[in-house]
Amino acid sequence: MGHEFDRDIAVTRVDETTFTAELGAGWDVGGAVNGGYLLATIGNALGQVAPGKPDPIVVSCFYLTAATAGPATIVTRTIRDGGSMATLAADLVQDGQPRITVTATYGDLSALPDDVRTTATAHELPPLEECVPSSMAPEEVRRMAPLMGRFDLRLDPAYAGWAVGEPSGNGIIQGWIRLVDEREPDPLSLLLMLDALPPVTFDLGMPGWAPTLELTAHVRGVPAPGWLRVRHETRNMARGMFEEDCVVWDSSDRLIAQSRQLARSPRSR
Amino acid sequence: MGHEFDRDIAVTRVDETTFTAELGAGWDVGGAVNGGYLLATIGNALGQVAPGKPDPIVVSCFYLTAATAGPATIVTRTIRDGGSMATLAADLVQDGQPRITVTATYGDLSALPDDVRTTATAHELPPLEECVPSSMAPEEVRRMAPLMGRFDLRLDPAYAGWAVGEPSGNGIIQGWIRLVDEREPDPLSLLLMLDALPPVTFDLGMPGWAPTLELTAHVRGVPAPGWLRVRHETRNMARGMFEEDCVVWDSSDRLIAQSRQLARSPRSR
Repeated sequence: MGHEFDRDIAVTRVDETTFTAELGAGWDVGGAVNGGYLLATIGNALGQVAPGKPDPIVVSCFYLTAATAGPATIVTRTIRDGGSMATLAADLVQDGQPRITVTATYGDLSALPDDVRTTATAHELPPLEECVPSSMAPEEVRRMAPLMGRFDLRLDPAYAGWAVGEPSGNGIIQGWIRLVDEREPDPLSLLLMLDALPPVTFDLGMPGWAPTLELTAHVRGVPAPGWLRVRHETRNMARGMFEEDCVVWDSSDRLIAQSRQLARSPRSR
Repeated sequence: MGHEFDRDIAVTRVDETTFTAELGAGWDVGGAVNGGYLLATIGNALGQVAPGKPDPIVVSCFYLTAATAGPATIVTRTIRDGGSMATLAADLVQDGQPRITVTATYGDLSALPDDVRTTATAHELPPLEECVPSSMAPEEVRRMAPLMGRFDLRLDPAYAGWAVGEPSGNGIIQGWIRLVDEREPDPLSLLLMLDALPPVTFDLGMPGWAPTLELTAHVRGVPAPGWLRVRHETRNMARGMFEEDCVVWDSSDRLIAQSRQLARSPRSR
């Protein structure tokens, strides 16, 4: 197990339905564990529950309270396992309290038919070398967000002005992303990538924490090796909440994963 | 109770967590009950579970097997009730089998702050009188889909050609919609409206049944009275599945509800 992502999402099966995990402090942002990392860890456990159905296809998760680095228990439940897909559930529990509750459809992505009729086109993104590496973030930011050290993230400079106090006001953040140790993407790491970037509200000049109420992820295939292109966007900030849509395109130009979350707006400055 | 929607989503509380419902045959399509109607019925039960939190804000539902008209039991569960929102769950059960499993965040939509910074613009739609009323559908279609009789639906003719064997190929269906007896919209009827139209695959020349795996709905406020504008679109049909996004705009020009579902593609003709 050479890659930190694999080490850190590892789960140990305790009995037929229960797994334990050790949540890594390297995935923290401001003292709470990143939601995408939690999703990948829970997703890893769920992949072992239904025989022949190792892959997440749809995952819906409700974030109840912040999870923190350290031991966690993942309690799974099979709602229905029939045909080519299974509907599964999981709670991630710390200190006797559920932190996240997940429902998911699992199947075998490699067994799906080959048809692709995608009409969406990938978002325009400057070449890698013209993007802003997140490693350029100030030391104090990287100390507050160890998560940033897990990725090689190159932000589109058109929507990265928030990092220097000049948000574009569009509600968009996009860039190139891969794991820092160049571990290749797979369905579980796609769950991470769908919720790895800062909230799009940064680009609206709202730098605070934006707690997610719910996030639904679709994983539409096994990603090709190489860099992923990721784009987050919000179009409906209203009534103290905003939706955030994310698309992930792989190196073979496939729209390989999508997510939408509803989050609470950061408190105004 | 003068309106059929209210009569048909009515639930009877049996004990603290359990409700019964009588699913109305008027909401059938091809012998199965419409998913949006089921969502509204379950949503009605969930609105009675957490004191002071009557309204759906996020609802995620996994469709396990088709539900049919007749008696159903809705078994609810409070996952967390704290602060201004509660996370709740429900299973709709028929003949001892769960048909749908739901997780939801409930709150009080009328108590949310007033800010609106929506950047999305409503889709272009011809005036009501230039759209195609669904009541013009052939008698045999309306017999197969009694659901159609529940709405006054006026389809944008640009994406209604599928009705006469000439689909536009865009993967879009949109129009004006209200309940046929002019019951005004509310948060529960928005849950219905998010999944009331035919699958967008009709507009791609694939007229078959497209079973939903999962649908997540966001209800972003109490809708203004009057007609709603609804648009469904798919952009990522691939590997035997497609996502379908829906937006609902109210008469005050607010993006009042959104949903995304992942469904199986209809079998090719």
